[in-house]
Amino acid sequence: MADNKATIVVFSGEMDKIFAAYTIATGAAAAGMDTTMFFTFWGIKSIQKGNRTGKGLMGKMLGLINRGGIERQGPSKFNFGGLGRWMFKKMMADKGVAKLTELREMCVDLGVHLLACKMSMDVMEIDRTDLIDEVEDVVGVAKMIKEASESQIQFFI
Amino acid sequence: MADNKATIVVFSGEMDKIFAAYTIATGAAAAGMDTTMFFTFWGIKSIQKGNRTGKGLMGKMLGLINRGGIERQGPSKFNFGGLGRWMFKKMMADKGVAKLTELREMCVDLGVHLLACKMSMDVMEIDRTDLIDEVEDVVGVAKMIKEASESQIQFFI
Amino acid sequence: MADNKATIVVFSGEMDKIFAAYTIATGAAAAGMDTTMFFTFWGIKSIQKGNRTGKGLMGKMLGLINRGGIERQGPSKFNFGGLGRWMFKKMMADKGVAKLTELREMCVDLGVHLLACKMSMDVMEIDRTDLIDEVEDVVGVAKMIKEASESQIQFFI
Repeated sequence: MADNKATIVVFSGEMDKIFAAYTIATGAAAAGMDTTMFFTFWGIKSIQKGNRTGKGLMGKMLGLINRGGIERQGPSKFNFGGLGRWMFKKMMADKGVAKLTELREMCVDLGVHLLACKMSMDVMEIDRTDLIDEVEDVVGVAKMIKEASESQIQFFI
Repeated sequence: MADNKATIVVFSGEMDKIFAAYTIATGAAAAGMDTTMFFTFWGIKSIQKGNRTGKGLMGKMLGLINRGGIERQGPSKFNFGGLGRWMFKKMMADKGVAKLTELREMCVDLGVHLLACKMSMDVMEIDRTDLIDEVEDVVGVAKMIKEASESQIQFFI
Repeated sequence: MADNKATIVVFSGEMDKIFAAYTIATGAAAAGMDTTMFFTFWGIKSIQKGNRTGKGLMGKMLGLINRGGIERQGPSKFNFGGLGRWMFKKMMADKGVAKLTELREMCVDLGVHLLACKMSMDVMEIDRTDLIDEVEDVVGVAKMIKEASESQIQFFI
């Protein structure tokens, strides 16, 4: 129903923002909202299987820079060459907060729709086979606009 | 009423984004909207009393890095070790723009609800007593989702 | 109609975020939505004619730092002193993705309303004459709030 939808555009790739995105999606789905996450630009990294980015020169460069899967991204601030990521993970583990991969699984279990942005994948030279199987579809911006316009909650993260 | 609500998720801690968040909240409240700000992650810093972050090692590290209250945060770009913050403040003072603490006070005076994210506070080892008294409540993501889903305006900043 | 509106607050100035903002605006307008972009803070740079920022010291410093028009901004990550921008442009060109100026033109052609934030312009010492002619109006936050509250889609980018 149009009265019970949430759409989250995940543009950022930093660990803290990705974490916020999945947490909000989990919360919305748990509240009974039909929730969609639309992954675009750096956000795509959080639904990749590993480091398979790009066959061409550009894709290779991007893969080199942004290597590793969802657990290898640093926070948007204070990364200190990986220290920030370690600190965050340690703090979250100490406090019993779920890991990113677990949060993502929780989203899938709660029925959150994971959609990948076609244009971003073309630009970054990422194939459908590079994405985790849980991704429901690869779609254009028109589909995201349709979902968002029917949603009570829309966030750009 | 459901027809007249605004919810702003304040995730970022940089001065310029915090400034934008409070300005939008002020504008929404001034327009008669029932406005809620939900502070999470770095945004929590803008409702802290001072630099009291963390008793454990992690909290101490975060406190060290991100010390000072709301007036000590730099902008998201061009900070130059504090110069950016000075520049911004000077420009705003020259143009008669309110300081962040004044803007925050204005929000409170206009009835904006300040809510703090429980999970972020746990992870960052921040207590309720570390937050300014004007904070109405410490809540989970479910409360934010409820507010946002009833709101005409929802922003993630 | 209130049932068919989109409002995008463009706060960021980085090439990738600006690109996302214009792409979403294009998509919304193409879907028949009455679409408004409200440019504030760094977002203002993407509707400037060139590098005319500021007559005063502060404006001059900002102009110096953030010089060049819409095509001179780097992405929010991996800029490497301009290399990131070059890489992005090259990848987009290789994949047949529109340039930022073309995307902006497309927005205007599709009837997207470009509004500039008055306070940001005051602080950054930017005149109306420094903005591209396609900018419809210079407005306050109250106007943005009004548009957003009537919109099905609102994003803060």
